Amino acid sequence: MKCISFTCDYNEGAHPRILERLSQTNLDQEPGYGDDSFCAAARNKIREAVNCKDADVFFLVGGTQTNATVIDAMLRSYEGVIAAHTGHIAVHESGAIEAGGHKVITLPGKHGKLDAGSIRAYMDAFLADEAKDHMVQPGMIYISFPTEYGTLYSASELYEIKAVSEHYSLPVFIDGARLGYGLASPECDLTLPTLAQLCDVFYIGGTKVGALCGEAVVFPKGDAPAHFFTTIKQHGALLAKGRLLGIQFDTLFTDGLYMQISRNAIERAMELRQLFIDKGIPMLLDSPTNQQFPVMSREQLKPLEGKVRYEIWEQLPDGRLVTRFATSWATTGEQIRMLAELL
Amino acid sequence: MKCISFTCDYNEGAHPRILERLSQTNLDQEPGYGDDSFCAAARNKIREAVNCKDADVFFLVGGTQTNATVIDAMLRSYEGVIAAHTGHIAVHESGAIEAGGHKVITLPGKHGKLDAGSIRAYMDAFLADEAKDHMVQPGMIYISFPTEYGTLYSASELYEIKAVSEHYSLPVFIDGARLGYGLASPECDLTLPTLAQLCDVFYIGGTKVGALCGEAVVFPKGDAPAHFFTTIKQHGALLAKGRLLGIQFDTLFTDGLYMQISRNAIERAMELRQLFIDKGIPMLLDSPTNQQFPVMSREQLKPLEGKVRYEIWEQLPDGRLVTRFATSWATTGEQIRMLAELL
Amino acid sequence: MKCISFTCDYNEGAHPRILERLSQTNLDQEPGYGDDSFCAAARNKIREAVNCKDADVFFLVGGTQTNATVIDAMLRSYEGVIAAHTGHIAVHESGAIEAGGHKVITLPGKHGKLDAGSIRAYMDAFLADEAKDHMVQPGMIYISFPTEYGTLYSASELYEIKAVSEHYSLPVFIDGARLGYGLASPECDLTLPTLAQLCDVFYIGGTKVGALCGEAVVFPKGDAPAHFFTTIKQHGALLAKGRLLGIQFDTLFTDGLYMQISRNAIERAMELRQLFIDKGIPMLLDSPTNQQFPVMSREQLKPLEGKVRYEIWEQLPDGRLVTRFATSWATTGEQIRMLAELL
Amino acid sequence: MKCISFTCDYNEGAHPRILERLSQTNLDQEPGYGDDSFCAAARNKIREAVNCKDADVFFLVGGTQTNATVIDAMLRSYEGVIAAHTGHIAVHESGAIEAGGHKVITLPGKHGKLDAGSIRAYMDAFLADEAKDHMVQPGMIYISFPTEYGTLYSASELYEIKAVSEHYSLPVFIDGARLGYGLASPECDLTLPTLAQLCDVFYIGGTKVGALCGEAVVFPKGDAPAHFFTTIKQHGALLAKGRLLGIQFDTLFTDGLYMQISRNAIERAMELRQLFIDKGIPMLLDSPTNQQFPVMSREQLKPLEGKVRYEIWEQLPDGRLVTRFATSWATTGEQIRMLAELL
Repeated sequence: MKCISFTCDYNEGAHPRILERLSQTNLDQEPGYGDDSFCAAARNKIREAVNCKDADVFFLVGGTQTNATVIDAMLRSYEGVIAAHTGHIAVHESGAIEAGGHKVITLPGKHGKLDAGSIRAYMDAFLADEAKDHMVQPGMIYISFPTEYGTLYSASELYEIKAVSEHYSLPVFIDGARLGYGLASPECDLTLPTLAQLCDVFYIGGTKVGALCGEAVVFPKGDAPAHFFTTIKQHGALLAKGRLLGIQFDTLFTDGLYMQISRNAIERAMELRQLFIDKGIPMLLDSPTNQQFPVMSREQLKPLEGKVRYEIWEQLPDGRLVTRFATSWATTGEQIRMLAELL
Repeated sequence: MKCISFTCDYNEGAHPRILERLSQTNLDQEPGYGDDSFCAAARNKIREAVNCKDADVFFLVGGTQTNATVIDAMLRSYEGVIAAHTGHIAVHESGAIEAGGHKVITLPGKHGKLDAGSIRAYMDAFLADEAKDHMVQPGMIYISFPTEYGTLYSASELYEIKAVSEHYSLPVFIDGARLGYGLASPECDLTLPTLAQLCDVFYIGGTKVGALCGEAVVFPKGDAPAHFFTTIKQHGALLAKGRLLGIQFDTLFTDGLYMQISRNAIERAMELRQLFIDKGIPMLLDSPTNQQFPVMSREQLKPLEGKVRYEIWEQLPDGRLVTRFATSWATTGEQIRMLAELL
Repeated sequence: MKCISFTCDYNEGAHPRILERLSQTNLDQEPGYGDDSFCAAARNKIREAVNCKDADVFFLVGGTQTNATVIDAMLRSYEGVIAAHTGHIAVHESGAIEAGGHKVITLPGKHGKLDAGSIRAYMDAFLADEAKDHMVQPGMIYISFPTEYGTLYSASELYEIKAVSEHYSLPVFIDGARLGYGLASPECDLTLPTLAQLCDVFYIGGTKVGALCGEAVVFPKGDAPAHFFTTIKQHGALLAKGRLLGIQFDTLFTDGLYMQISRNAIERAMELRQLFIDKGIPMLLDSPTNQQFPVMSREQLKPLEGKVRYEIWEQLPDGRLVTRFATSWATTGEQIRMLAELL
Repeated sequence: MKCISFTCDYNEGAHPRILERLSQTNLDQEPGYGDDSFCAAARNKIREAVNCKDADVFFLVGGTQTNATVIDAMLRSYEGVIAAHTGHIAVHESGAIEAGGHKVITLPGKHGKLDAGSIRAYMDAFLADEAKDHMVQPGMIYISFPTEYGTLYSASELYEIKAVSEHYSLPVFIDGARLGYGLASPECDLTLPTLAQLCDVFYIGGTKVGALCGEAVVFPKGDAPAHFFTTIKQHGALLAKGRLLGIQFDTLFTDGLYMQISRNAIERAMELRQLFIDKGIPMLLDSPTNQQFPVMSREQLKPLEGKVRYEIWEQLPDGRLVTRFATSWATTGEQIRMLAELL
């Protein structure tokens, strides 16, 4: 039996329909840099899906790149970006934001989430600080949806953040690297069009949701920063064969494929979670999305050795390990059943 | 009849064998970030092809990104990179090098080429300048092979640059975005292993030579800068699904595919060039590679209208246009024949 | 009666002896950029004072500039600097370190101080983290002496940090903007030569200790980073009339003036502190240096209105204010007596 | 006899009246960071001198720092600054502009000057270039007055540049490190108020015109970029004891001192120039300001050995040396006479 991997949601290639489209269109001659007909079609389908007919849509290759490019475009050189202390940009992007000259202003998050109250408290203290002109000026808010811990913001939480954002003139940027897995969760009370109304810019993750690569950046109001194309190029984020991104997003946004495969990941994740719960294995936190964090002893993990791969998130003082099991568009019921047998 | 495009060498998708491999391996579970078995295999095949068994090999996504990442890794913050004034990094990368904090020190090139003599003259003047500590310290040499004008360095020219490089401790970086089209040219007196000996770092372009995307950075001596992986990540150049790059380069370096498809481009380019010459249409310069620059009047271009696409490079004072016609791995004899008929 | 200010230690001009020397030497013609005879003399006196005859010494203008320049010179682009969360570079330099491309990695400090144990714990966790290559690489340790809260590291605390520094190859940089006020404290068990042995680079603050401006950066082992002069220039930190800095440091390091005026600040600070304690006014923390933080009600502050200026550091939940009173080289016994009368 | 130096205009300290004011005010307690009464007074005097009652005025320490700070504040991250290829920012600032992320787009200058026609030609070509979105966007124009070669723009030349600036929305920044020496030249047909009308931001150099240090940045229309104070701080260009700058500029702009001492430099320069001309020694170019460039053989320079210092600018192919002799506010008639005797 081959080893099954739940280490992440980018273990496989792409949804087969994407590969088919790549083959079918392979020798069509198209312009580069996103001027191709596939990108045009994908943009239109995304505008429709987010229900913003004037939205600006750009296709970039990966998440860190997209975060760095969008944040750089939204901020002036004296500004920083507010994020949860666990935010991807604060921890796992090798300092890409700082390399662009901007401070990541971290606020304590809870299970990966920022809350409107703590942003407001920070801003009030900042504005009251006599030394504020000697400090980095807060220039935008970064949140991830779902978060790095698989948790979700409710609609009302995002409304509150939106209110704070407007009050302090801090645009909101939603990192949607796993957006589908958030929207497909039964606990999610947001739709794509609603989410688009609650931020200034966000992206629809492709890499982790069925594509080989690609993130679709959306400015719902059609107010992308001036020369955003040039900023993308400067960040090395402009794909010469933009068609690769266009074809993928066009496919993902045809016949609801993006949400359909997202739902698969969530259904498998809920099955997987139940397996652990049934065995009396606790979860680090209550994640309604495709990342689950069972807390297990080394003994409990033994039966998986050599048969199932997962990530070790951290070791608890009592010696138990927080593990991460991620499902994806590609996870099969068969894989869950095999895990069940081993546990 | 459909319009044929000679505007660039990234008009199509990928070599069909690449798409086949993507399909065959699609559901194999593999680790991310280049730790997959395809990348491992591709690295080994590239080490063999460049005849450097200890070479360090990294896969990045695109050219501008690769230039910015490699140059940032090779330079200290007080250093700049020497390039021909027509070099891609000096002109068409939206200031990506400067965004990383480094000056591009341009020297006048000829038909896209730097020559050892002018680097030496620059360095001697720099070292004799009393104000040199107030200036950007030259830290490396960037050349493109082939150049942005399709021209090539001969082995002896590169030997001379290598000598200058060693004398002044300036590592040489070769931008090989179109490397295959250089090596496959009948006028090229270099092989891949020889080229690897004549520089400190170079890359093998995939995007323009049959891949959907991807550039393979090679440090022939195995002396990649410390933490180069982290630098790649910081530049947003680390692909989560590294397998996409690994599979492509593994395929390109299996059974000599890379050189085979490069030769196709060159053969078509030579046919195309002959077509123009036969019509008495002069070339801007003598390019032995896949980019050809016929100088044509608007009248001469008229028959191509709506049937053949090409790039306009610049307008000459006499009103004629310098055009660029590029062939690629995908260009067919049929396409050349259709062009012939129209001319 | 004129209002007295205890708001900071840069309320006045310079020690009169400095102004005298500026006048005496005013029309002497000297080279620029630190090549003058005054800088040469000052360098030698500082080498003697720190007891490192091979030390490299550079004169810069101000603190933020010096921090940004030294840190940029010590780090590679993938590295960040470890600091207490209250460190000046983390809070009050408008993101100068991030503007240079580097993350400030903050660890919780206590009363402004980092401790060796928490650096060790951070590093052990970092090195054990499977994702560490996706993170900013820790590259150096920044501490301030005295800290932003007026506190001091003991010799043994610095020895422990030094041990951690060597174990993890993290050079230590001491921000000595108020160095004199630390060394002159009765509670300090360090001398200038000892401190120089316990770090890799530090600076002797002039701006806050009797000079008009100026900070003397010292690399005790004489191992300043290559091209540090160029880095200074690039950071806009190279003073054309370097003599202004040379004359000042030469004067401060003649006949022990630097320590003598530092002691004045400390003696006045201790008197000032006693005044508050005698009135039953508590201190935020026990500061043995020139910054004191009395915690006072608005009522208690009333008598000072219009007569004494101080800084408000923060407001406590119970409504009382943490204030900062700073003495300096220029504070007189008369000023302390006037404060005593008012309290 | 002591050696006389004409190497530059920062060989001496400061005008004696500045030192007197520093002494007189030395123990006055004043706030830091430019909030002192001296800066306030100096700002008002400068507003009057430039005849712009709403001008924003900021005091920074040195020229490179000022250039980097102003340019960073005026540009977005995708923009670059147009300068003559001999411009200080392009050559002698160790890449400070690039370190801030911006390209210096150099156009061929003549004797240090840009002309409106070449900026227009560059912009027209840029705007017509199909690849312009892949290039650095031109964002402002930098000129020096006087230039690095001592030459001056006439009012009509600046009017033309202003017209180009408005046409292409490229703000004009004038580096006035030696502004006084330009305005005091008999060949200058501009006044300070006129110059202020012909640009968007400029600075009045103090360092080279009688101050110990200091440059006064002026936004004549009072439209300094948002949070410019924070940008100054981020660049390490904010002096804690802002009084040092305030006192100096207040003194320089009292009773016309700035122009008076500038005229001294020019009168001495014209005498010095005549000395060379009388000896049949040619000038590299016709400089109407305080920098003169006699072209001399080594034999002609022999009598000056050990008695007069000057700079060597470059060596001509025929072996003669282009030298630079600079006068300043401090140059005396006696020094010129001594030079005369030696020649």
